[in-house]
Amino acid sequence: MKSVTLAMGNGGEENNKLIRDVFYGAFGNEVLDKSEDAAVLQLKMKNEKLKISEIAMSTDSFTVSPLFFPGSDIGKLSICGTCNDLAMMGASPKYLTLGMVIEEGFSLDDLQKIVASMKKELEINGAMIVSGDTKVMPKGTIDKIIINTTGVGELMVEGISSNAISKDDVILVSRDIGCHGATIFAAREGIELESELKSDCTSLYPTVKALIEGGVKITALRDATRGGVAAVLNEWAKQSDICIEVEEESIPVSDEVKGICEMLGFEPTMLANEGTFLAALPKSEAQKALKILKEFNANASTLAKVTDSYTQKVVLHSSWGTKRFLESPTGELLPRIC
Amino acid sequence: MKSVTLAMGNGGEENNKLIRDVFYGAFGNEVLDKSEDAAVLQLKMKNEKLKISEIAMSTDSFTVSPLFFPGSDIGKLSICGTCNDLAMMGASPKYLTLGMVIEEGFSLDDLQKIVASMKKELEINGAMIVSGDTKVMPKGTIDKIIINTTGVGELMVEGISSNAISKDDVILVSRDIGCHGATIFAAREGIELESELKSDCTSLYPTVKALIEGGVKITALRDATRGGVAAVLNEWAKQSDICIEVEEESIPVSDEVKGICEMLGFEPTMLANEGTFLAALPKSEAQKALKILKEFNANASTLAKVTDSYTQKVVLHSSWGTKRFLESPTGELLPRIC
Repeated sequence: MKSVTLAMGNGGEENNKLIRDVFYGAFGNEVLDKSEDAAVLQLKMKNEKLKISEIAMSTDSFTVSPLFFPGSDIGKLSICGTCNDLAMMGASPKYLTLGMVIEEGFSLDDLQKIVASMKKELEINGAMIVSGDTKVMPKGTIDKIIINTTGVGELMVEGISSNAISKDDVILVSRDIGCHGATIFAAREGIELESELKSDCTSLYPTVKALIEGGVKITALRDATRGGVAAVLNEWAKQSDICIEVEEESIPVSDEVKGICEMLGFEPTMLANEGTFLAALPKSEAQKALKILKEFNANASTLAKVTDSYTQKVVLHSSWGTKRFLESPTGELLPRIC
Repeated sequence: MKSVTLAMGNGGEENNKLIRDVFYGAFGNEVLDKSEDAAVLQLKMKNEKLKISEIAMSTDSFTVSPLFFPGSDIGKLSICGTCNDLAMMGASPKYLTLGMVIEEGFSLDDLQKIVASMKKELEINGAMIVSGDTKVMPKGTIDKIIINTTGVGELMVEGISSNAISKDDVILVSRDIGCHGATIFAAREGIELESELKSDCTSLYPTVKALIEGGVKITALRDATRGGVAAVLNEWAKQSDICIEVEEESIPVSDEVKGICEMLGFEPTMLANEGTFLAALPKSEAQKALKILKEFNANASTLAKVTDSYTQKVVLHSSWGTKRFLESPTGELLPRIC
C-alpha cells in the first residue's frame, strides 16, 4: 500500500489497519490501546496532588455530502457525533471545540443554518462551544465545508468499556438500523422516496442518562456509525475476546431501509447510523433497560447473545436455520457518509 | 456579505467579524466572550461536589500549503499550534485529539513523515494523542490533507488573561518576527533563497515553563500566528482597553524577512509566526523575563509600552519621529498559511 484509499476511511477493516499501522505505531499509548469511543483521562487538581478528576474526550471530523439531508444536516450531525461518543462512555457532554474549514464562496445563509442546527443540538446535550477556529480555503481546494468537533465530558459512571463484555451479558439495540446510510445513499443517487425515510441522527445522551438514572448496570455502549452494526459487533468480539451470535430475524430494519438495500445490494448491518447504539449489559438488567430504551424508540430490542462458540467472531443465524460469519465491512460503500 | 471570502480566514478584521456575527451570535457564552488563546474550564470531580479541576482547552485546524517547507511541516505545525495556545494560557499541554481528513491517493510515505513529525513534537510538549478520527475524501474534493488538533492542558498558574493588561505592564517579544509567513510566501512563489530563512515553527511550552518556574509574574501571553504581531497588539489594545505604543526600530526583524517584505510589499508585523509570542508583564518583571527569553532566542526584546494616549489603538513611532496607527490586517495576504 503506497497511497491512501477511500476504503481506509470506511470505519471497517482497512480503516482499522491504517489506524493500527500508521497512528498507533507513532502515538500508541495506554489510552489509545483501549479503542473506546471516547478516551477516559485523568487530570490533576492544582495544589492537591492526590486529587484527580476524570474526564472523557473525543474528536470527530464531518465531511458528509450532501450537507442537508432528510432528518438532519452537517451541523446537527457534528454535535451529535461527538456528544454521542462521550455519552457512549457514560459521560455527560460539557465543553466542545469547533474547527470549521470552509471553501471560499460558501453561502453565508447555509453557514447560518448549520450553526443554528448546532446551537439547538448543543442545548439538548447541555454542552457549550468553548473554543473555535475558522479557516477559509481557496475555491476548488475543498468541497464546501468540513467541521471538526472535539468534546470533553464528565463521567456519570465509571467502568463502561468495550473490553469488558462477557457471557453474562446480552446485547440490545436502541432502534431499527441503517436509516442514516440509506438516507444518504438515496439523496446521493437522486432516488425519490415516497416514504418517510430519514436519517436517525440524534443525540443519545438523554437515553444514556435515563438508563444510568434508572439504575441499569451497563457493561459497554457503542453507537453504530461508519461500518454500521456489523463493525461494532466485530470490534466488540475482538476487544472482549468473545463470540457474538445474532438471529437475523431479531435485527430491527424498517421496510424503507430494506427497500433501499434490496435496490442497491447492501446489507442493513453495514449501513451507517448516527443515532443508534448497541448496549451490552448483564442479562439480569435486560428487561429494565429495554423498557427505558422503548420509551425513546419503540423498535429497541434484544439483538444478540454472547457465547464462546467462535471467539472474536460474529455469527449470524438466518431464519432458515443456516449460519455464517458476519464480517466487518471491507471496501468503501459510500465515502462522506458522515 | 452573502458568501464566505478568503479574508474571513485571515486572522484579522474580517475573520473577527465572521466570528462575532455568526459564531458568537449562536454560541456566545462567558468562556468565548473572553477571547483567549485557550478556554479555561472547570470540571466537577465525581462525588465531591465542591471540588473542581481547572483545565485549558483549545482547537486548531491546519490547512497549510505546501505541506513541507523550510523549518517545519504540517505535522509539527499541528502539534505546535494547539500546544502553543495552551501554553499561552499558562497551561502544560497534556491530552490531544487528532482529526485527519485526507484526500484519496495521498502518499502514505508523506503521511508517515507527517506523523513522525507530530510524534517528535508531542514529546517536547509532554503531551499525548488520546483520541483520533480519520476521514478519506474522494480525489479532487480536498487538497491533500487537513489536520485538526484539539488539546487539553493543566494550568500551571492562574489568571493569565489578555483582558488584564494595564499601564504597569510592558510588552516583550520572544524573537525576531515574520519568519513563518515569509517562508511560506517564498515557497509558494517559488522564490529561491540563498539565505537561511526558515519558519519559526516551534513549541513554546518550554519557554513559558521556564518563565513560570523562574518566578516571572505574567499578565498575558499570545502567540502571533495569522494576522501577525499587528493582530495581537490590536486585540490586546481592544480587550484590555489600553493604548499600545511601539517604536518601529525596536521590532526585531531579520534581514531575510525584510528582504521578502521589500520584494513583495508586505509589513513584517502582519506576517504570520508559528513560534513567536508576545508577553505582557509588569515593568518590574521585564529584566528577569528578558533574561530567560534570551536563553531561548537571542533576539528576544522589549517591543512596546502601554499608555492611555489612544485607547484601543496601537501607535507606531517611526525612526523619523512620525507616528501612525498600526492597524489589524485586512484582506487576505496569503491563504493557507497555517
